[in-house]
Amino acid sequence: MLTKLPGLIDVHVHLREPGATHKEDWDSGTAAALAGGFTTVLAMPNTNAAIVDGQTLGLSLGAAELKARCDYAQYLGGSSTNPKTALELSNKVAGLKLYLDQTYGDLKLDDMADWLPHFANWPKRAPLAVHAEGKTLAAAILLAAIYDRPVHLCHVSRREEILLIRTAKEKGLRVTCEVCPHHLFLSEDDILAIGRGRSEVRPRLATKADQDALWANLGVVDCFATDHAPHTLAEKDGNNPLPGFPGLETILPLLLTAVDEGRLTLTDVVTRLHDNPQRIFALPKQPTNYIEVDLDSSYEIHAKDQYTRCGWTPFEGWKVKGRVVRVVLRGKTAYEDGRVLAPPGCGKNIRNL
Amino acid sequence: MLTKLPGLIDVHVHLREPGATHKEDWDSGTAAALAGGFTTVLAMPNTNAAIVDGQTLGLSLGAAELKARCDYAQYLGGSSTNPKTALELSNKVAGLKLYLDQTYGDLKLDDMADWLPHFANWPKRAPLAVHAEGKTLAAAILLAAIYDRPVHLCHVSRREEILLIRTAKEKGLRVTCEVCPHHLFLSEDDILAIGRGRSEVRPRLATKADQDALWANLGVVDCFATDHAPHTLAEKDGNNPLPGFPGLETILPLLLTAVDEGRLTLTDVVTRLHDNPQRIFALPKQPTNYIEVDLDSSYEIHAKDQYTRCGWTPFEGWKVKGRVVRVVLRGKTAYEDGRVLAPPGCGKNIRNL
Repeated sequence: MLTKLPGLIDVHVHLREPGATHKEDWDSGTAAALAGGFTTVLAMPNTNAAIVDGQTLGLSLGAAELKARCDYAQYLGGSSTNPKTALELSNKVAGLKLYLDQTYGDLKLDDMADWLPHFANWPKRAPLAVHAEGKTLAAAILLAAIYDRPVHLCHVSRREEILLIRTAKEKGLRVTCEVCPHHLFLSEDDILAIGRGRSEVRPRLATKADQDALWANLGVVDCFATDHAPHTLAEKDGNNPLPGFPGLETILPLLLTAVDEGRLTLTDVVTRLHDNPQRIFALPKQPTNYIEVDLDSSYEIHAKDQYTRCGWTPFEGWKVKGRVVRVVLRGKTAYEDGRVLAPPGCGKNIRNL
Repeated sequence: MLTKLPGLIDVHVHLREPGATHKEDWDSGTAAALAGGFTTVLAMPNTNAAIVDGQTLGLSLGAAELKARCDYAQYLGGSSTNPKTALELSNKVAGLKLYLDQTYGDLKLDDMADWLPHFANWPKRAPLAVHAEGKTLAAAILLAAIYDRPVHLCHVSRREEILLIRTAKEKGLRVTCEVCPHHLFLSEDDILAIGRGRSEVRPRLATKADQDALWANLGVVDCFATDHAPHTLAEKDGNNPLPGFPGLETILPLLLTAVDEGRLTLTDVVTRLHDNPQRIFALPKQPTNYIEVDLDSSYEIHAKDQYTRCGWTPFEGWKVKGRVVRVVLRGKTAYEDGRVLAPPGCGKNIRNL
């Protein structure tokens, strides 16, 4: 028997186009999304070139229009010089993304003085998402509080972070957050098994105590998001391994396995992969997007079965229970029984719907 | 002609007792305070042992009662285990000091989860002071905002910090801050002249742009404080130089020189070395404490003329204009013409007045 769920929304993916299409592009990345049960993805701006103005936004959206197989929107990256430009583009993008701690790409804003105009000027109704860890996360929450606006905290991974977010929410601050599957299902203890280079990810794999704190505070977690960040095996296994994991095709089976084990309910999953993302990112309701999953189907995760171009997964060989059987995009079957049916270009920019 | 000013209050000194009386003790440190124009000093808790409970507080206050030549109070240090103890001692101490970034001693609280009970439980009427730089400073302001309480930010040194504090104050958050003379009068550019080891201080000497930003935002600065942190020359010039500068005997002549140069007014100085410290730290009004200064007296700063035990100053040889001539403590002359007259033990714990 199949279970029908809404089309899932991943608010945090890296599709590597423009600039690194040997890892992924709008075609392969959205094929992976469909295979993972997602009908909408929000693409991060730390591409090459980075998406920071109308011209670079056009580069990404032009490629997406031709190639995307599922619905999408593109984040704009905040720089020290683009607060005014960002404001002009605010209706056209998934949201504004600020890189406040070190990660892949060159969008990091080191100086808090450069954060102020973004927090002050970005429209309150438009999503503002931040990469901010530890004290930097607290600093981002402070600026949101000062400017009385919502802020979305990406890939929360540590105990002190989730406890601070809990406290901030209890005091009425408008913060939302996402947690990634690799921080829920992996920790430092898995690094040797995965391999040191392949384990590189930002935020890093944390301690078991951090991992436990995420599970213990799931009520504070608004979204699950993959932070799908494909790099090739050559890049992961080389001398200077790039940080990031693919995740689009593994998150749902991992979460459904946790449902099977009684660690989550199906409602917990749908809330965090559809309802809350739709609300927080002000996405259109799309009742004709839905998926069908077989909760009883067990299988092993293997990179060779994936659509992502990167060719590996940190969950290689994991046994999971719960399979995406069919994905329907605006009434049409877009994925079924392992085959992506939606052609490149059939995905829509949800900011134009 | 002599100018009469209120007895100055230094809200941030390290007197090194218990544990390191070869650098300074309650006797030599308070002699230096009087020579610098201070009638009250608030002593930091990162001694050895650190002042974190009733027993260690007794150690410090016992020594102070015997030796202090000016009035004083002792901070309590926050640890991961003492929020409840701290609350019980809140009436007896200058305030609670939280070390949230790296400095001298072992009181650093790394995990934000350890900050929460201190911000939650420490009485709102009692002073809470933090060593917090950059994003950590923002995090400390956030916790004060969440728990709707005041917080005092020690030794602000950087542009992004003072701009953030300006913004926070404009939005009505209850933050106060202090700036040290070495961050006003020295920058990275002075490190070679002072010597690398001797220049070590936390927060570090900053850029000229940071220094300029402090001067440009003096309206945001509530207090001047020395962060008097004596180490011997052997310790400063060794292989592992300890961070910290002496400052009690140089701050007022440096500031009066800036007054002479038109960079400050005398009111700016008195506000930040008396009025605001008295108000922020809820200190008793002591109209019979006052000092007399000769605004026209020029001289050179030399370590050999100082009462601090540490034997050096980063301002060696600086030409200043403005001299402390007389210091009166509760109606009695405590310092005059270079001689400390107040005997050890005549200083009072201002929390007992």
